[in-house]
Amino acid sequence: MFSDKVMDNLKRASWIRAMFEQGNKLKQEFGAENVYDFSIGNPEVDPPEEVVKAINEIAEDKTPGTHRYMPNAGYPFVKDAIAKKLTSMYGLDVPSDNICMVCGAAAGLNVVLKSILNPDEEVIIFAPFFAEYKFYVGNGGGTPVVVETKENFQIDIDAFGVAITSNTKAVLINSPNNPTGVIYSEETLKSMAAIIVEKEKELGINIILISDEPYNEITYDVGELPVVFNIFDKAIVVNSYSKSLALPGERIGYIAASPKIEVCDKLMAAIIFNNRTLGFVNAPAFSQRVVAKAINASVDSNIYKERRDVLYNHLISLGFECQKPDGAFYLFVKSPVEDELEFVAAAQKYNVLVVPGRGFGRAGYFRISFCGNMDTIKRSLPAFTKIAAEYF
Amino acid sequence: MFSDKVMDNLKRASWIRAMFEQGNKLKQEFGAENVYDFSIGNPEVDPPEEVVKAINEIAEDKTPGTHRYMPNAGYPFVKDAIAKKLTSMYGLDVPSDNICMVCGAAAGLNVVLKSILNPDEEVIIFAPFFAEYKFYVGNGGGTPVVVETKENFQIDIDAFGVAITSNTKAVLINSPNNPTGVIYSEETLKSMAAIIVEKEKELGINIILISDEPYNEITYDVGELPVVFNIFDKAIVVNSYSKSLALPGERIGYIAASPKIEVCDKLMAAIIFNNRTLGFVNAPAFSQRVVAKAINASVDSNIYKERRDVLYNHLISLGFECQKPDGAFYLFVKSPVEDELEFVAAAQKYNVLVVPGRGFGRAGYFRISFCGNMDTIKRSLPAFTKIAAEYF
Repeated sequence: MFSDKVMDNLKRASWIRAMFEQGNKLKQEFGAENVYDFSIGNPEVDPPEEVVKAINEIAEDKTPGTHRYMPNAGYPFVKDAIAKKLTSMYGLDVPSDNICMVCGAAAGLNVVLKSILNPDEEVIIFAPFFAEYKFYVGNGGGTPVVVETKENFQIDIDAFGVAITSNTKAVLINSPNNPTGVIYSEETLKSMAAIIVEKEKELGINIILISDEPYNEITYDVGELPVVFNIFDKAIVVNSYSKSLALPGERIGYIAASPKIEVCDKLMAAIIFNNRTLGFVNAPAFSQRVVAKAINASVDSNIYKERRDVLYNHLISLGFECQKPDGAFYLFVKSPVEDELEFVAAAQKYNVLVVPGRGFGRAGYFRISFCGNMDTIKRSLPAFTKIAAEYF
Repeated sequence: MFSDKVMDNLKRASWIRAMFEQGNKLKQEFGAENVYDFSIGNPEVDPPEEVVKAINEIAEDKTPGTHRYMPNAGYPFVKDAIAKKLTSMYGLDVPSDNICMVCGAAAGLNVVLKSILNPDEEVIIFAPFFAEYKFYVGNGGGTPVVVETKENFQIDIDAFGVAITSNTKAVLINSPNNPTGVIYSEETLKSMAAIIVEKEKELGINIILISDEPYNEITYDVGELPVVFNIFDKAIVVNSYSKSLALPGERIGYIAASPKIEVCDKLMAAIIFNNRTLGFVNAPAFSQRVVAKAINASVDSNIYKERRDVLYNHLISLGFECQKPDGAFYLFVKSPVEDELEFVAAAQKYNVLVVPGRGFGRAGYFRISFCGNMDTIKRSLPAFTKIAAEYF
């Protein structure tokens, strides 16, 4: 009676959400304080003070019309504020017209992919990947092509080059990465850009680099991130304030297209059209205003760094193998048994919830989200010790 | 370099948005007070007092976690409040599990269509129709089938029956209607339901009735609206608070599936999955809370009734032909010349902006949105008098 494709997808439901639901069941049975739920990336951290202040000021603003429609791309003054910030961060002029406000990065990626893909064109993604990417590419009518990363989760440049075909339309990267926490260096990105230029010429195609950057403010002692607009000829940044301002429930983010794209006005027209017709219409008015008022605010990444260090150090001391994350708030840990589902089930016996790596396209690993409560993290350590005792 | 289909759609860009942009140009040239912009349905009315109060209270609520992710279907307490209200309004039990909070009705329709359509299945819509419907059906992978309404814009039951084929999957109605303001009577809906039951048996298919009801609180002396859940076997209501609470910029609404649908749990799972993977993720947290706090609030439809009466009476007195709207805030007026583009251009000479009927699938008419400022409406009357003098 309903969509066969959706019914089929439902059978392969999200591992992250499945663990989240399982967590809720365990919490009912054992009490929330006795369950160590590391399944979902739902920051326990609340928004920074500037954001709270902005929310109050906007709520009290009685100017007529603050909840009305605005242009589909967003309020001009909000786009101006973001364009100005990016211009300063990137060291190149990002015009306000290259910004489209969207309902979070998930919305932004769907809008961008729908704007550029023709039927069956390919989008390269790198495993392990954020599980939703495959759906987003499918929604845009394209085909995801998965390229494996190296043992340390960095891009395998040779494998990347081999994966590019005459059907390749886009490359989707996510740095800092969910689920691995790795950051791609400027050198890595420049190597990717060189291969793209080479393949574009060889195959007579255009390849667009899409950079999904919701964790760009959550980094640990790595300095400034490389700027994709300065490295790639045709780049689109998709960003969200879910992590940087701790507003995931509010659905607010933006798309920024590189000024280097030659026919950028056409691209932006397509993006704005899709933002409208895919049903987003516009990013929520209230949150747009919040973002503009708190444009320089960011959560303190030290909060996450402390959590990372406590968990990472404990796991390593127990014998687990894990790449130390440079950003984002996940540990992607090698399962001590080949079948990580076995490990995930074993962890559940100790009320520890982690997500199987196969949910991210890399079996044999599990993901721990460390954006939760520090007390929970500390209290979970003995449970990890007990689990480890079963394997090491 | 981008999506050919989107580029093609851009050429046939929205007439509503085109007039809205044209209006902005004229306002820059002649001053905003001298332009009579009846193009877009962007209510000038601000939210009711209960909503303003709710916004303030929620902004001041310092409980941790109010901006975090919640289940993709929305906060359970918000869904409960809506389910309770619908149960009381409809006189049948609407479980909370049958509600999914969405980013407005445009989002809700995209989510529902994606959840039910298989490739090339047909969705019947009635002309004149809300121009975006064709895009929404296309996004879901389906084909829109347009059925003409009668001279008075009511459903032509015979034409409807003829349009149903073995590929028909859904029927999309919008009452009170944009752009005509007509409301379908209980009798009309019952006739439609009877035909659907007959055709389902004859063709061995399932047909889902989708009722897009954002104007359900904007009605004029017509009493209670018929309840589609009580009339159709398989009905889904999509609603928005854009008009009823004057919050169009905030993107908040809901999907409610009829408890009579036999496999409703599967349908809701598909809806929640698509709400997530199409990139909405969840309806904005803040606005969900607002809706729950102001669950019984509604804008005063008398504000719109006054505007309707002033404009309608003046136009009729000038010789224009127009169905008197029973709801929503649009007049769909017969063009005094066959080619309404000629009329629309003539009106622009007097700084009057209206939208050509062909934008809604019915040439020879134009739409006036009367949700704007009463002063503007009154000051526009002499301009309409001058335009009329050219034709009558």
